[in-house]
Amino acid sequence: MKILVINAGSSSLKYQLFEMDGTQVLCSGIVERIGLESGIITHKTFDAEGNETKTKKELPIPNHNVGLTEVVALLTDAENGVIQNTDDIQAVGHRVVHGGEFFNETTVITAEVEEKIRECFQLAPLHNPANLQGILDCTKIFQKATQVAVFDTAFHQTMPGKAYRYAIPTELYKEHGVRVYGMHGTSHKYVSKAAIDHLGLEGKDSKIITVHLGNGCSMAAVRNGQCIDTSMGFSPLDGLMMGTRSGDIDPAVVFFLMDKLNMKSEEVYDLLNKKSGMLGVTGDSDMRDIEARYNEGDEVAILATHMYTYRIKKYIGAYMAAMNGADAIVFTAGVGENDHGIRKYAANELEGLGVYLDEAKNNKLRASDIETISTSDSNVKVLIVPTNEELEIAQQTLAVLG
Amino acid sequence: MKILVINAGSSSLKYQLFEMDGTQVLCSGIVERIGLESGIITHKTFDAEGNETKTKKELPIPNHNVGLTEVVALLTDAENGVIQNTDDIQAVGHRVVHGGEFFNETTVITAEVEEKIRECFQLAPLHNPANLQGILDCTKIFQKATQVAVFDTAFHQTMPGKAYRYAIPTELYKEHGVRVYGMHGTSHKYVSKAAIDHLGLEGKDSKIITVHLGNGCSMAAVRNGQCIDTSMGFSPLDGLMMGTRSGDIDPAVVFFLMDKLNMKSEEVYDLLNKKSGMLGVTGDSDMRDIEARYNEGDEVAILATHMYTYRIKKYIGAYMAAMNGADAIVFTAGVGENDHGIRKYAANELEGLGVYLDEAKNNKLRASDIETISTSDSNVKVLIVPTNEELEIAQQTLAVLG
Repeated sequence: MKILVINAGSSSLKYQLFEMDGTQVLCSGIVERIGLESGIITHKTFDAEGNETKTKKELPIPNHNVGLTEVVALLTDAENGVIQNTDDIQAVGHRVVHGGEFFNETTVITAEVEEKIRECFQLAPLHNPANLQGILDCTKIFQKATQVAVFDTAFHQTMPGKAYRYAIPTELYKEHGVRVYGMHGTSHKYVSKAAIDHLGLEGKDSKIITVHLGNGCSMAAVRNGQCIDTSMGFSPLDGLMMGTRSGDIDPAVVFFLMDKLNMKSEEVYDLLNKKSGMLGVTGDSDMRDIEARYNEGDEVAILATHMYTYRIKKYIGAYMAAMNGADAIVFTAGVGENDHGIRKYAANELEGLGVYLDEAKNNKLRASDIETISTSDSNVKVLIVPTNEELEIAQQTLAVLG
Repeated sequence: MKILVINAGSSSLKYQLFEMDGTQVLCSGIVERIGLESGIITHKTFDAEGNETKTKKELPIPNHNVGLTEVVALLTDAENGVIQNTDDIQAVGHRVVHGGEFFNETTVITAEVEEKIRECFQLAPLHNPANLQGILDCTKIFQKATQVAVFDTAFHQTMPGKAYRYAIPTELYKEHGVRVYGMHGTSHKYVSKAAIDHLGLEGKDSKIITVHLGNGCSMAAVRNGQCIDTSMGFSPLDGLMMGTRSGDIDPAVVFFLMDKLNMKSEEVYDLLNKKSGMLGVTGDSDMRDIEARYNEGDEVAILATHMYTYRIKKYIGAYMAAMNGADAIVFTAGVGENDHGIRKYAANELEGLGVYLDEAKNNKLRASDIETISTSDSNVKVLIVPTNEELEIAQQTLAVLG
């Protein structure tokens, strides 16, 4: 069964086609600069041995529909195509960022589901409209396929009230949905499940702390496979320090910037989302550039790195307290999988909590599979688990088809 | 040597007179409703055995100066007075809420110090102006006394950059002082020092987590007697859930309330400071009322109690991670000293981190001295240490006089 995974952003569209009799990737790609003067499509096909053939096209792509039509042309290309026609796709799995409190699991898309995704626009104004547009376009183009929505927030819906409620008037929660939702749920679910399998904890009282470090960063406390807490809150701004986002900050700072420095609310919002985090402290947002400066002894880069890792460390402790211990700490996503310095400062000097990092193992370069980077006698295992959100979406889509 | 301790608020003035050859309290009191139509002075004197004589006066008190003059009349009263005249007071120790980055220790007040307290008005607009007014009035009235400032923020000035910096543009820190300052420093210092003494950890690598739960709530991680992290941030709004304050919240909520619900920034500020916390969730702000509802099975009171204690528990874990373990967790202040239910839910189910609460010991009523409420074999001790900010101010004042 062929399942297409779609991740539609405001000006981009990522896709990956799986042959889900196994988990083979037939092709993947990205359409970028949608709506701008000149768009770009990067398309890769893979043969059974995983050898890659890359195609790149530049052309005007005024909207998602045109982008998808171009993708279909590549998919069905006489020479390099991977399907005969659109009817070969039996299901499309869509990443949808925000499912509010409506969705705690993956669901087949109906008119009612579309309406609820629309109702969540207010909670994810940058993402949900694009996600819905992708769904509407795919519904027209892949007419025989079942359209399925996989929500970033769904995995976190198992959190108890003490974790998801804010200490603000109850009506703001009941009438306006102000609560912790969390993000990156597909990744947290995928890597926590992989860690549970890897450690043979299935069916036991497992306690996994997942650390997703990419452009956005978040952590989750996962007990028995269910999320019980997460670091992103009402929005993707909260929690860990990120490339350009502040993460946790006293809300009084917002008022100070508006009232004392005369900034407008949208300027403050922009500052906290786009000019803060590693960028705000160092002037750089790419962790590789900051690492290079760190290695040269740059004091600002050293401070920022320790701010970034100290927050991860504190969330590790917080989630160990929340679960009364932990079986494993799992690092994933671009930075988590590749940056041994970040992992080191986040997970070292935690022996008092039963975490013994093996520095030599940690210094290894990118892991292509699950790697253990704690010592063999560490009470709490430290793992690297490469995330694969597209595969998780394909698998959940397959599961929902029954 | 007689030392008067003054805590001047915007409409109140608390005082306590110590005979610091020992640590005897000669008298204490509070002037309330300053500036309102009718003020109240409640004055207590204590004899050598600690027996109390209480005097209450109602009269118009238009400003702090009039209030202080009335206090002097009580202090020097022919029958019940404790001093002959104002010259008997050798020093006045003033609680000052905010010392910014200027003060990391208690200091004798000079014109320059007054100016720096004024420069911090912006950081503590409700408190510092009243504190300074108290200083100016006392300087006139107690002309022979040395005036000393004891800052709530001073104890936290030893935090490293990774703990006190926010992940926002560096110039907001450098030019406008936007950083974590913390509050309740006098209390955190007093109880952590008492715990170090009690546990015989003086001179060792001690790791104490202090939990100050009063109207305001904050925690601190204290290593070797020095604060390395604290839960209140730029303002007293951040961190733990409090009676009426939200504590930690995604700053994006502020923008949502302004942009989507059309609230003004001052309304949002007021909501987070005065209508949130336990009050916002339950409708009550007094922990005793909420406890009564909890015991009756009221679901809202149960949720709020677990929100309140879950945050304490997560900070305990975070600070254990920050210090690579802990010797002791110390509960103090009104709620921390008296509410065994709060202590229980904050510190139970932490055996995975070496914390074993002794529920029978914890159920004891108010402790008048240091009590241990963990089991005898608990790796991490759990203590109740009654705080005494006035005595700490008197002792620091005495110390600065040399």
